[in-house]
Amino acid sequence: MAQTMDNLSWIAADWGTSHLRLWLMDDQGTVLRHIGSDRGMSSLKSHEFEPTLIDLIGDSLPDQGSIPVVCCGMAGSRQGWAEAPYSKAPCAPPSIDQATQVQTTDPRITVFLLPGIKQLPAADVMRGEETQISGFLAETPDFDGVICLPGTHCKWVHISAGEVVSFRTFMTGELFALICNSSVLRHSVNDDGWDADAFEAAVSDAASRPAAVAGNLFSIRAESLLCDLDSVAARSRVSGLLIGIELAAARPYWLGQDVVIVGESGIATAYEAGLAQQGAMARRVTAENMTLNGLRAAHAKLAEMTP
Amino acid sequence: MAQTMDNLSWIAADWGTSHLRLWLMDDQGTVLRHIGSDRGMSSLKSHEFEPTLIDLIGDSLPDQGSIPVVCCGMAGSRQGWAEAPYSKAPCAPPSIDQATQVQTTDPRITVFLLPGIKQLPAADVMRGEETQISGFLAETPDFDGVICLPGTHCKWVHISAGEVVSFRTFMTGELFALICNSSVLRHSVNDDGWDADAFEAAVSDAASRPAAVAGNLFSIRAESLLCDLDSVAARSRVSGLLIGIELAAARPYWLGQDVVIVGESGIATAYEAGLAQQGAMARRVTAENMTLNGLRAAHAKLAEMTP
Repeated sequence: MAQTMDNLSWIAADWGTSHLRLWLMDDQGTVLRHIGSDRGMSSLKSHEFEPTLIDLIGDSLPDQGSIPVVCCGMAGSRQGWAEAPYSKAPCAPPSIDQATQVQTTDPRITVFLLPGIKQLPAADVMRGEETQISGFLAETPDFDGVICLPGTHCKWVHISAGEVVSFRTFMTGELFALICNSSVLRHSVNDDGWDADAFEAAVSDAASRPAAVAGNLFSIRAESLLCDLDSVAARSRVSGLLIGIELAAARPYWLGQDVVIVGESGIATAYEAGLAQQGAMARRVTAENMTLNGLRAAHAKLAEMTP
Repeated sequence: MAQTMDNLSWIAADWGTSHLRLWLMDDQGTVLRHIGSDRGMSSLKSHEFEPTLIDLIGDSLPDQGSIPVVCCGMAGSRQGWAEAPYSKAPCAPPSIDQATQVQTTDPRITVFLLPGIKQLPAADVMRGEETQISGFLAETPDFDGVICLPGTHCKWVHISAGEVVSFRTFMTGELFALICNSSVLRHSVNDDGWDADAFEAAVSDAASRPAAVAGNLFSIRAESLLCDLDSVAARSRVSGLLIGIELAAARPYWLGQDVVIVGESGIATAYEAGLAQQGAMARRVTAENMTLNGLRAAHAKLAEMTP
């Protein structure tokens, strides 16, 4: 059983569609404890967010005072805890002064939902990534370039003078999961392993003939049936085809730019390798660090606002 | 309860992945009875095919003699009733002389599984469509042009001198179903209705910027969130984007060619409209008629072989 934490100063929360991550912080911004949970936004009704949070951190809360909870991600969407209306690009990543404060029953917490960013025209939205961008800019305030945030919905974000100038989202990660898990190709691809050569060849092929993607995907099935195509190569080729067409479309974002990829997982490695195949170098930063730094920056601003 | 049919001469069968269609035929090739069932190949183990068939047509079989069952489709795949090895393109659509005869327990039937066609290199396969092509060529033996067979996996087939010269399969239909039913876009698209303008605009956009497809798909989600995009327009746009990139890749097949689309459903209409948007005219023939004519042609050859 967790004990009340005397040095608990505030709580950082990344509440996404499928996951909730919490960090209990002291007043120096040091992580006292990390809690991960699968109680993501999509599994909760609006009135279930507070009990879920109290379930996970209630024992650590002091009896006196109210602990700020600074939260980014889909919890702030219309289907989430409460709607934190989008900021509109071009804009700096929104901070605590634009956050939505949620009414809670438990007086021991004060919850702030950070807004996402919308763009119009060229309709687009982000919710969660803006906090990673804020975390990156906290470390590199003079950055002028492009941040690529791979994931279910990969985002390419043009940053200049501390602002999100424009961005573009691609459904690539979601398409990859659907194709590998639910299409006829599920019989041909392996869950694990990586074939760098197959990936790079597919990136190159897709970037030069993007329209052929639905045909090139079926070729993987046919080669699997007729030529015993290796299932690791098959999966790497699906990834390469999808990332390749995305890189072709995102070329105005990365060509001749300073590119930073946020992420440490396999998908970030794949984007880095895909960009390298296309002749572009990118550097990588850790997603969790960026999220936490962004939440720290928002909390620091809260401290400034309430002296 | 069905009665024995004295004038039953043979049975035509289209045994696909998810459906089984049977036609009981007299010796003039007239349909005496049609039976549809959802006991497709994917729901059956190898030893369950014969009992399934007997279940559906056993009562109609005469006690004397053996009724030929001429069967096309996935029942002839490795995971089906028995493997009917592929013919190799370029070739005429395979007929009864290349069929695989299956051992049956019930002496009242003699089952022939028609082969599909494979292509190597440019690995590709078809199983079922070759019989529709055969049915079309039975009516139009001098056809020189391209047959487009929309569906889960759309096929473009170059026909000359009565042969399948080459073909190319696109996973477009399967991607459409996955995106509309299982991706984040399921919240934005409607099951029914059609917006021809939205479809045509998307075809045009995708054909000219095919690489942007994964971004253009997410734009539909963003416009749905930010601009209340109509859900019928959203679904038509998904269709237009996917068919548009396919048409761009299949241009060598349809440009300046005599194009025939096999199909009567919504998807065939969409391909016809997409081609029209790209400036190409196509004519339509009925899929069921082509299948039945192809099976009739195979049966006629059987009659020739066994005088």
